[in-house]
Amino acid sequence: MAFTEFLVALVVALVIAKILEELFIRIGLPPVIGDIIAGIIVGKSFLGIFVPEEGSAADSLAWLGVVLLLFYAGLETDYRNFIRGLKNFIVVSMLDISLAFINGFIVGWILGYPLNQSIFLGTILVATSVGLTVKTLLDMGKLDTREGLVILGVAVLDDILGLIILVAALSVIVYGVIDIKDILFIGFMSFLFWLSSIVVIGGLSSRVFRVFSKLHIDNALPILSIVLGLSIAALAGVIGLSPIVGAYAAGLALAKCRRFQIVSEKIKVLIDLLATLFFVASSARIAIESALRLEYIWLYALFISFALIGKTIGNTLGSRIVGLPWRKALIVGIGMWPRAEVALISATMGMAHGVVTPPIYFATVMLIIITSIIVPPIIKLLYAKETT
Amino acid sequence: MAFTEFLVALVVALVIAKILEELFIRIGLPPVIGDIIAGIIVGKSFLGIFVPEEGSAADSLAWLGVVLLLFYAGLETDYRNFIRGLKNFIVVSMLDISLAFINGFIVGWILGYPLNQSIFLGTILVATSVGLTVKTLLDMGKLDTREGLVILGVAVLDDILGLIILVAALSVIVYGVIDIKDILFIGFMSFLFWLSSIVVIGGLSSRVFRVFSKLHIDNALPILSIVLGLSIAALAGVIGLSPIVGAYAAGLALAKCRRFQIVSEKIKVLIDLLATLFFVASSARIAIESALRLEYIWLYALFISFALIGKTIGNTLGSRIVGLPWRKALIVGIGMWPRAEVALISATMGMAHGVVTPPIYFATVMLIIITSIIVPPIIKLLYAKETT
Repeated sequence: MAFTEFLVALVVALVIAKILEELFIRIGLPPVIGDIIAGIIVGKSFLGIFVPEEGSAADSLAWLGVVLLLFYAGLETDYRNFIRGLKNFIVVSMLDISLAFINGFIVGWILGYPLNQSIFLGTILVATSVGLTVKTLLDMGKLDTREGLVILGVAVLDDILGLIILVAALSVIVYGVIDIKDILFIGFMSFLFWLSSIVVIGGLSSRVFRVFSKLHIDNALPILSIVLGLSIAALAGVIGLSPIVGAYAAGLALAKCRRFQIVSEKIKVLIDLLATLFFVASSARIAIESALRLEYIWLYALFISFALIGKTIGNTLGSRIVGLPWRKALIVGIGMWPRAEVALISATMGMAHGVVTPPIYFATVMLIIITSIIVPPIIKLLYAKETT
Repeated sequence: MAFTEFLVALVVALVIAKILEELFIRIGLPPVIGDIIAGIIVGKSFLGIFVPEEGSAADSLAWLGVVLLLFYAGLETDYRNFIRGLKNFIVVSMLDISLAFINGFIVGWILGYPLNQSIFLGTILVATSVGLTVKTLLDMGKLDTREGLVILGVAVLDDILGLIILVAALSVIVYGVIDIKDILFIGFMSFLFWLSSIVVIGGLSSRVFRVFSKLHIDNALPILSIVLGLSIAALAGVIGLSPIVGAYAAGLALAKCRRFQIVSEKIKVLIDLLATLFFVASSARIAIESALRLEYIWLYALFISFALIGKTIGNTLGSRIVGLPWRKALIVGIGMWPRAEVALISATMGMAHGVVTPPIYFATVMLIIITSIIVPPIIKLLYAKETT
């Protein structure tokens, strides 16, 4: 049966990915790098066992994984500290995101890429993944400082704005528009869908919780929450947006009712299984020898330096404006360097739509690896200098 | 994108299935009937939105659902009471299963079916699903009686032997053998694979638990348990057996270490999501007008009466032999009537291999509905007479 083949591929991908995730956690790198390398091993580059073609079972499962991951990310959002410092966070995040985007765009411009590819370079660089920074600060007992709170708050906004930019960028590519007015219009429409989903579902979230909790089917609350998230994702897909924006909006909206936290715990296993497949699949589709070539070294160097410069300037300036002293502002700036899942999601989505090339994908992977290695020691160094 | 279409089909199937599950629970019927009717609505018969073709994403997800369901069923097995009364249970179960199988086989013989179809009729009738009986006894405070314990114990053996018979029957069809010696040989091989998986993994289960618990990846224990279950399922598939036998064996083996109970709680959400898809998909593939015809009424009547007669004689006699008084033995006999998931799995697997026709599938569905309705009042009646 075809199912046995699918099962074998799935098992091989999962076993290798989970072993490498464990390995990367132990050496202090983000586990998602393990998934990427697992993808290179089982995919097109080497074994050729797990090569998800568009519309295949493995491909659909991988996309389902990223949809559920974003639903989960939305659901996990903690509004309390966020709302408290919102004004400050908006200032920092706006500066952060515009500079990150422009820097990515400039890389494309320097390399002579077409407009839509340059837009995507900017989109990839917008993402931040502060998990590593947060862990570093937590280990040092510095998370509950002003700079720690700014990093946490801006990260929430970065995720939201970053996804809106991704959806807008995708729409631009799907509709093939390059007029700046059209881009703004599509961006605005995506934002509108996103906002109205949040307002409608968010407003009903307590009532939704009560209804779901009363039902008799097994695991009614988590199952129906997932089905609701998938429904909004499907709706976004049907009206021409990316399903992930719907899933994220649904998650964010339900998180308004804090009792939904129990759902995110219940569905975590599902995420840990399927999101892994998404990241494995993203690198499995690429032949590594076509991307890791010396001729691209200029692209890699440019992409990574501009990625770091953009985040540093935007966040340091923004934090200075909202009143942090220079050194603390710089800690925020460097604390926002790390990228992980969201940048990879952007790169993979861009690849699925043909605007992100394998070298850009691998530049993103390298950015993740490099920032993971260098950010913790730099932050420690900045704090060490402070006390002397 | 193809993914949006898949997502829409998935959401429609899940929404309708979960609404109907809720409805059927409320009117006191097994929720799986809701899934079947949802499949008829969204599938080939009516809407045509969710028609999983072989190898498609929806099809693979559905099979993944049944594999995980059996892994879960194995994991949930409670050995303690089972081992205590094992000798008695074996006597009852052997009589039960042989008579159920023979009765199904006779139906095929009366209707003039070829040998492999008749074997499958027997296989479908072997399954028992005592959930409803257990709930009825529990509600009456009669579960902790001798007949209650026999029902629980025999149900475990029925599941195990039923699945071995299913796998043997499937192998017979895949290899196209009809020689009785070959059938016995394949049945023996399936049993051997199943038993050796259990002995090897079961023997290591405490050690496996310790290793999995020590790892750093998120949800290491449930995720790696699932991956282990899928691996044994894939292995079974590769050597030509059905993946479900591997998944069930892996679950049973891990259940030996009681601390794995925590895993079954953690993965239940995954099961509630994907097993639903399996049952929806099973009826979605059928055009109902080709099965629900007056000309098949003879088949339906024969199939259902022999299904009830077989279980009654086998279990009542068996229970009498191990020392239960006649009335209590009859309660066991009738308590074993209900069928649900396992019978449907057998029917669906048979359909996938072309030996179960749509009318037989629907005869199975009707058997499930009828036994669900009549068993609780009959059991209550038998107890009521006892006290007068």
